[in-house]
Amino acid sequence: MALFLLLLPLFFLSSLANSLPILFPRAPQSLLANLSESNKYPNLPYSAHYFPQQLDHFSYQPKSYTIFYQKYLMNSTFWERGEPIFVYTGNEGDIEWFAANTGFMMDIAPKFRALLVFIEHRYYGTSKPFGEKSYESADKLGYLNSAQALADYAVLIRSLKHNMSAESSPVVVFGGSYGGMLAAWFRLKYPQIAIGALASSAPILQFDDITPWSSFYDGVSQDYKDESINCFEVIKKGWDELMRLSSVKNGLSELSTTFKTCKTLHSVYQARDWLWEAFVYTAMVDYPTKANFMKPLPANPVQEMCRIIDGFPPEVDILTKVFSAASLYYNYSGSQSCFNIGYEADVHGLDGWDWQACTEMVMPMTCSNKSMFPPSAYDYKEFGDQCKKTYGVRPRPHWITTEYGGHNIKQVLSRFGSNIIFSNGMKDPWSRGGVLENLSSSIVALVTAKGAHHVDFRSATEEDPTWLIEQRTLEVEIIRSWIDKYREDEMI
Amino acid sequence: MALFLLLLPLFFLSSLANSLPILFPRAPQSLLANLSESNKYPNLPYSAHYFPQQLDHFSYQPKSYTIFYQKYLMNSTFWERGEPIFVYTGNEGDIEWFAANTGFMMDIAPKFRALLVFIEHRYYGTSKPFGEKSYESADKLGYLNSAQALADYAVLIRSLKHNMSAESSPVVVFGGSYGGMLAAWFRLKYPQIAIGALASSAPILQFDDITPWSSFYDGVSQDYKDESINCFEVIKKGWDELMRLSSVKNGLSELSTTFKTCKTLHSVYQARDWLWEAFVYTAMVDYPTKANFMKPLPANPVQEMCRIIDGFPPEVDILTKVFSAASLYYNYSGSQSCFNIGYEADVHGLDGWDWQACTEMVMPMTCSNKSMFPPSAYDYKEFGDQCKKTYGVRPRPHWITTEYGGHNIKQVLSRFGSNIIFSNGMKDPWSRGGVLENLSSSIVALVTAKGAHHVDFRSATEEDPTWLIEQRTLEVEIIRSWIDKYREDEMI
Repeated sequence: MALFLLLLPLFFLSSLANSLPILFPRAPQSLLANLSESNKYPNLPYSAHYFPQQLDHFSYQPKSYTIFYQKYLMNSTFWERGEPIFVYTGNEGDIEWFAANTGFMMDIAPKFRALLVFIEHRYYGTSKPFGEKSYESADKLGYLNSAQALADYAVLIRSLKHNMSAESSPVVVFGGSYGGMLAAWFRLKYPQIAIGALASSAPILQFDDITPWSSFYDGVSQDYKDESINCFEVIKKGWDELMRLSSVKNGLSELSTTFKTCKTLHSVYQARDWLWEAFVYTAMVDYPTKANFMKPLPANPVQEMCRIIDGFPPEVDILTKVFSAASLYYNYSGSQSCFNIGYEADVHGLDGWDWQACTEMVMPMTCSNKSMFPPSAYDYKEFGDQCKKTYGVRPRPHWITTEYGGHNIKQVLSRFGSNIIFSNGMKDPWSRGGVLENLSSSIVALVTAKGAHHVDFRSATEEDPTWLIEQRTLEVEIIRSWIDKYREDEMI
Repeated sequence: MALFLLLLPLFFLSSLANSLPILFPRAPQSLLANLSESNKYPNLPYSAHYFPQQLDHFSYQPKSYTIFYQKYLMNSTFWERGEPIFVYTGNEGDIEWFAANTGFMMDIAPKFRALLVFIEHRYYGTSKPFGEKSYESADKLGYLNSAQALADYAVLIRSLKHNMSAESSPVVVFGGSYGGMLAAWFRLKYPQIAIGALASSAPILQFDDITPWSSFYDGVSQDYKDESINCFEVIKKGWDELMRLSSVKNGLSELSTTFKTCKTLHSVYQARDWLWEAFVYTAMVDYPTKANFMKPLPANPVQEMCRIIDGFPPEVDILTKVFSAASLYYNYSGSQSCFNIGYEADVHGLDGWDWQACTEMVMPMTCSNKSMFPPSAYDYKEFGDQCKKTYGVRPRPHWITTEYGGHNIKQVLSRFGSNIIFSNGMKDPWSRGGVLENLSSSIVALVTAKGAHHVDFRSATEEDPTWLIEQRTLEVEIIRSWIDKYREDEMI
């Protein structure tokens, strides 16, 4: 569910930083490292299992048959034989993390007497086909892609149903963000295995030329603008102010003081990335309740950030304002006395999503004049060259739309397919690449004006607003209707 | 369209011939060789083109990006910009052969002002990624499979539409036999590229345990039984008579005389394969008109064969009867003075379909007591061991149903997908593994009692019976309705 999607271009663009005034944030490596520790979630109500999975489903070299162990989590507390199986189609990270942040499935399991299964995506967490060497080269990484992941899910689910004598149990897939894309695509490609999909915050239209390339950052910016014009303007001016400091004597030292860094910054881009990440991720996780997804944050964190900025007297310098706002993201708990800004040392480590972004998950993004970010362009050639240099292979920027579609999606799916919910919250900048209108009577869009990145998947809390409660209720009703129809059709 | 499907198990089972009294026929290598000569079809109204295709669509090793040239044939005589594109999804052989035997598409092109495209299946004809070395080993053959073939079609069609400024042209895919499976699967997997599929004689349910394993040979047998009980009985007795000769002094020599062989037989199995092929293929191509698909044959050749058998006085020996009937298949033109029975020298040559059968296209078949063939069993383990020995890899017998479905197909597709015609003629033994009832309002079955293997795809002739004319008319009407709806939906 985390949108590591967003993490993509950092390691490329950092080398282009002087020519391209844009830098996408990525989660600090330390965070990723923590997530891989399974004891991070000691109270997770799932048992871990490992499925012998085939390395390559779409070729038949002897080495294609290599087996690796794919992790999956299961909870059968509420399940009764014949009743549904709810499967989370894991995305780009440790499966425990997604399980911990998809309390919705646990909340509704008793209603459906459902078996819960969370399947880890190949090459993430502990499901690495070549262990620690999995990211070593394109020869090993080559099998990390969406089609192989979907096939993994198909094979695993079929085997699981067989082994549990659960052949008559209907399977519904759930996924958020990239996992949501996988859930939707899984329903489209494997209707014989899943009767329906709930795809939350799945930007399946963020590819190729389907959605304007500037939409994501326009969306982030709109979130801040909606809170306060001043807030938007201050952040927008911040970038120039940062750049100005880079050419000023003692600028970095001054900046280090303002930003309370533990060590003196050696590049203004370190500060820029740090701010960028804070503003972008906070827009994504602008939840109506206190939450801890990327970081611990209060309810409505964008509003809180703008409150901080707007709370300063006008004469206070811009960077102090933006720093203070960004601190909310990094230090809501107040435990940090200084910030470890700058993680370039880890930035060139190969990680799974960077590879996926460099092969098939190519989502071009620009910053328009309307955004609060410095204007920037996107160039396929430049991006491809960087990928080639890093991995030895080039992206296939039109592959996703060839394999899964996206262009004219309403025309294509109005008479094809069924049983998909695309849920999106409009505060989430990814929503602009999502499906925001019903495509047919059973491929539907649930759009909430105040929702953020797959907020519907979070555990219910006492503080949940009515619109969120209603959204989840509607999702449950729709899923119920799929199951009812499945039961009717069994009589065919 | 040719059912090389059927050719499958010969080279395995020949080594098991003593334990398994069954041997599937395959086309003589000489026939296959001829088909590869493009001058075999000098008057074919298509121009040949070559598309740079990617070797592996589902992995991203540097070598996955290797380009090979995929052949396709085109005729744009009737096409007008914006009007439909009819694509034949090539199957296991030279694309010219399929084009020559799918006159139906040419016949209807003017009505639709359609562009005609026939795409050759990778690893067949001249579309071999590694040239003459393509069948050398599993490392090279590994990329020969249905998923890669479907992806080829998707990439090629998308590129073609782009290059011809034909983005608004709806694409309808056509295919017969294995090509029909591909057409149906293509519509299911790539609805964004094809608006519908006409799958003729596509036994998509011949996998796993969906269709009884004995159905194919029961179907062949029924064809003969329907013509004459005597005919059926004579053929049924023939096998034992053959076997008896193998243990008789001078038996082979006697048999060679009866079978008019050019060279003396060195095994009774040579004669058995020869008969087997004749009876099975003749059932498949039991067309109502004179035709030349596998071989030149008269109209209703099963009836003709039985007429030959029944025409003998009862006292004539059984092998003379069955030989005479089989001669119709091999020598309808009367040009052969002796028969080159026995082609074991070529039998171990690797060819594409054997590989496909040994990896994913696993269609278990047995002969039941009800059939006119010697009873036989099927054993996954034994088959797998033979594949392993031959290619170094094992079959994945449940992969096709995992990837494409098949179990409970009506339940799955009654609310998913649209615009597929499954046409089947009940004289074709493959029809028993086909879709014989409507699955939904737009996934329909057209079944003709007297039809044989994709007879609807043949060019119209003066002699066509009414039921065949009506079938083709209905197919045209249904395809027309898909295009009309596509046009309506463009307004969405």
